Amino acid sequence: MTADDFMKRAIELSREHMNLNHGGPFGAVIVKDGKIIGEGWNQVSSSNDPTAHAEISAIRKAAQTIRKFDLAGAEIYTSCEPCSMCLSAIYWARIDKIYYGNTRKDAAQIQFDDDFIYQEVAKPIQDRKIPMRQIMYPDALSVFKEWEKKADKVTY
Amino acid sequence: MTADDFMKRAIELSREHMNLNHGGPFGAVIVKDGKIIGEGWNQVSSSNDPTAHAEISAIRKAAQTIRKFDLAGAEIYTSCEPCSMCLSAIYWARIDKIYYGNTRKDAAQIQFDDDFIYQEVAKPIQDRKIPMRQIMYPDALSVFKEWEKKADKVTY
Repeated sequence: MTADDFMKRAIELSREHMNLNHGGPFGAVIVKDGKIIGEGWNQVSSSNDPTAHAEISAIRKAAQTIRKFDLAGAEIYTSCEPCSMCLSAIYWARIDKIYYGNTRKDAAQIQFDDDFIYQEVAKPIQDRKIPMRQIMYPDALSVFKEWEKKADKVTY
Repeated sequence: MTADDFMKRAIELSREHMNLNHGGPFGAVIVKDGKIIGEGWNQVSSSNDPTAHAEISAIRKAAQTIRKFDLAGAEIYTSCEPCSMCLSAIYWARIDKIYYGNTRKDAAQIQFDDDFIYQEVAKPIQDRKIPMRQIMYPDALSVFKEWEKKADKVTY
């Protein structure tokens, strides 16, 4: 199968689950060693989960499939440029390459906030729309110090 | 209960689940109308889910609790400044305010990639470490056009 075949499947998922009223028009597949190991689609409105974007759903399924939290060696095909949440998830998952169809500007055109959130994430804390306040720093930091000393920790 | 009480609970979750080897030293709670409606902790390594950060887990639980994908009116208390994935999820969830303990620099200090991923997300596509390639744009865009015309869509 070619890159176009995998993207065709991602687009098919976006259309199919949009028509089933599962959520917005977004689909994604994750491919490793030439095989699809996870498929996802937007299910924010049907599952009451604001994090249930196509890419997050596909990553979670792929990681279950290979029983690893590290998807190094895998590629993601997504019907739209990943939002900043999904792009960050792709980095955390160590995915090697991203293929996308629509852009964040196209998503903005149909009233999705991808572009706005990208802009917010890039701002310094004090300039963001959602206020952020640091409290209880010494107490929080003490747990990080314990983590540093923890002998049997699993790092990622 | 005060802001410090809620943060104390978030820090307690970070320590407790770190010690249970569920994942990294991160905890979060979501509060609405003075009550905790969702608690989360990092469970990346124990659940094989690279997206299972404390804040994502707390958001998913809170949204289940109130049976809505929109958490407007809620606040999040997180033991560490949210990474770009979790910050974006907080925006998607329409959370009103963020309280945090440790910073992304503290997270970098104990070898977590939060700071690096923030930098990547802010870059133009062509300058990022993970290569991104647009393919099959017209096919992908046709689904967005169908979404625009869809009469019974649930927007968010």
